Amino acid sequence: MHTRVGIVGAGPAGLMLAHLLHQKGIESVVLDTRTREEIEGTIRAGILEQNTVDLMTETGVGERIKRVGSVHHGIELRFGGRGHRIDFDDLTDGRGVTVYPQHEVLKDLIEQRLADGGEIRFGVSDVEVEGITGDTPSIRFTEDGAEEVLHCALVAGCDGSRTQTRSLIPHPDVRQDHFRQYPFAWFGVLVEAPPSSEELIYAHHENGFALISTRTPEVQRLYLQVDPEDSVDNWSDDRIWNELHTRVAGDDVQLKEGPIFQKSILPFRSFVCEPMQRGRLFLAGDAAHTVPPTGAKGMNLAIADVYVLARAMGEFLNRGETAALDAYTTTVLPRVWRAQHFSWWMTSMLHRMPGSSGFDLNRQLAELDTVTRSRAGRTLLAENYVGTPLE
Amino acid sequence: MHTRVGIVGAGPAGLMLAHLLHQKGIESVVLDTRTREEIEGTIRAGILEQNTVDLMTETGVGERIKRVGSVHHGIELRFGGRGHRIDFDDLTDGRGVTVYPQHEVLKDLIEQRLADGGEIRFGVSDVEVEGITGDTPSIRFTEDGAEEVLHCALVAGCDGSRTQTRSLIPHPDVRQDHFRQYPFAWFGVLVEAPPSSEELIYAHHENGFALISTRTPEVQRLYLQVDPEDSVDNWSDDRIWNELHTRVAGDDVQLKEGPIFQKSILPFRSFVCEPMQRGRLFLAGDAAHTVPPTGAKGMNLAIADVYVLARAMGEFLNRGETAALDAYTTTVLPRVWRAQHFSWWMTSMLHRMPGSSGFDLNRQLAELDTVTRSRAGRTLLAENYVGTPLE
Repeated sequence: MHTRVGIVGAGPAGLMLAHLLHQKGIESVVLDTRTREEIEGTIRAGILEQNTVDLMTETGVGERIKRVGSVHHGIELRFGGRGHRIDFDDLTDGRGVTVYPQHEVLKDLIEQRLADGGEIRFGVSDVEVEGITGDTPSIRFTEDGAEEVLHCALVAGCDGSRTQTRSLIPHPDVRQDHFRQYPFAWFGVLVEAPPSSEELIYAHHENGFALISTRTPEVQRLYLQVDPEDSVDNWSDDRIWNELHTRVAGDDVQLKEGPIFQKSILPFRSFVCEPMQRGRLFLAGDAAHTVPPTGAKGMNLAIADVYVLARAMGEFLNRGETAALDAYTTTVLPRVWRAQHFSWWMTSMLHRMPGSSGFDLNRQLAELDTVTRSRAGRTLLAENYVGTPLE
Repeated sequence: MHTRVGIVGAGPAGLMLAHLLHQKGIESVVLDTRTREEIEGTIRAGILEQNTVDLMTETGVGERIKRVGSVHHGIELRFGGRGHRIDFDDLTDGRGVTVYPQHEVLKDLIEQRLADGGEIRFGVSDVEVEGITGDTPSIRFTEDGAEEVLHCALVAGCDGSRTQTRSLIPHPDVRQDHFRQYPFAWFGVLVEAPPSSEELIYAHHENGFALISTRTPEVQRLYLQVDPEDSVDNWSDDRIWNELHTRVAGDDVQLKEGPIFQKSILPFRSFVCEPMQRGRLFLAGDAAHTVPPTGAKGMNLAIADVYVLARAMGEFLNRGETAALDAYTTTVLPRVWRAQHFSWWMTSMLHRMPGSSGFDLNRQLAELDTVTRSRAGRTLLAENYVGTPLE
């Protein structure tokens, strides 16, 4: 079995890479250990940057996003009992974000790939990438009990934060890993209720952060900052509502209650590895970096990675030029680090750090005040939230 | 002995308050334990916000500032071996800062006060403020061996960070103190040399922060981030120059060397107390709050405090209205906290925190990148550096 690019992982990075390569006339095969049903059925949040929406639209996979995605022209930061709107439209010349779940993006990409004759092998096992430091890498895997070997010119490791491909860049001799652990987690609930607000509310409170977001007109997604050691068992529905009302309190917001039908605790960490490549292997998306959810950057970074990677692979495979491929890591890392910074900034500005003092709390409120009272401050936040243009 | 406002401390807050009160026809007496020679001879750095320059000019004490002060239209942030200019002129509609030493401000204010017939008692001792919770406060002090009592309607505590007046607001029953210690200090040297740069250079480096500033055309003031436990004895001239060259390295800067004639280590901390008032006593400037030097806010905050305080005292003494005096703390604290935030921001963005990881360092560089590449980011920095308008 032969192809030009072997892609490990049918997430946003892997599928979008295959799609972008196809547009450059480059054939690929995507492998995933999960079934199509698992991939399409794993419910995930999604906030798409303007860049992501534009790229998907330009490459013909944006039709359903435009039709059913919900464009948000701003967010609200709440602190000191008052809401402060960050008006994306006004501050970023009409750019915005689109709330559209990640699994819906995956459905759109899978459908388009299959319509274009693209090959995606779902439910494979024992995936082993070999020969990346030579000129003829290959991917060994098992499908329906039979061992297969996929020979290719290049390999993309798009297998998410539990990646196997990353380990092919030897640590610590070649690869450096940068971690940051945060001393809290998000407790998320799904609620059957109408939206409490048209736009997302990011609430700062002495008790900790809260986030009000909407999944569908009937289902709301609400989050509370909790201790990472906390358990959903400690949170009765009553306690959840009390705490949400407390943290989101103020004149102009009415939290709409409803049956809570799912509770979960989400880990919270930052990770970046470098380089993101070795020989014929190139990592993209969560396989190379993870961001905390506060900045809503995860899926967008994956798309930004493969936008650069597809172009670089195209120059190599179509014209034999290696410069862009060689420069892949140094090209994408500045954006990755800026996204890490933005996520850290939103996190550190809005969360209560355990053991923080009165000084810290007042400084944090002064930071929110400084940012929201100044057009420059609101613009800096807005332009990073909607995403700076892809280079 | 009687006056309307008894002012403890002949620093920027106390002298400017006396000057502003005089403009409202209100008589005051300023007391200081130091002699005039000590006050005018204690060499101190000074960066005046546009607000401070404007207020001094409008009230007739800005003539020498305009004549000999050095207006700066920008600063340079250096990181990754490259300089990035923050152009105040362009970003803040022509606002800027004026480099003019604090002791020169004091000379100007003392001269004007005396010319206006104002009373300043230098070199007094045993200053004791009494009766602030009643209607007839007084200040007991010793002058030339004789005990004096100054009766007044209001008392201003402008006696700096080693304040005695602050203790009259009982802690912790009435007063809350907010501290923040930073895990480093500044090692400052004075050098006989021409300026290396027309504008201040704030340099981020893996080894730690460095700051290049100019005192006069012949004397330069250079700083290095060091451990707070470090000693000047550990720093030979050679080591100082090596470290300065390393931290400020890059294409476009040539550090000019010369004889080092003073070395000192400066403490680094943030402090805010609240309330800043009790009964007839009102604190202003360093007596109520200290900022680290990174944001160049210290003297400017003192001036901003007394701008509000003089107006409030005027409304009370000239018209019997108490509302503005009652609201003094809540009026000035938001600016104080924003200045604390700005100083913390500049500090945390530019200094190497002991024990910081590769993640922290990369995130910091990404923050500098985010701020300097964006007009909004540069504007947010510039408008806070030159100072948001006084309310």
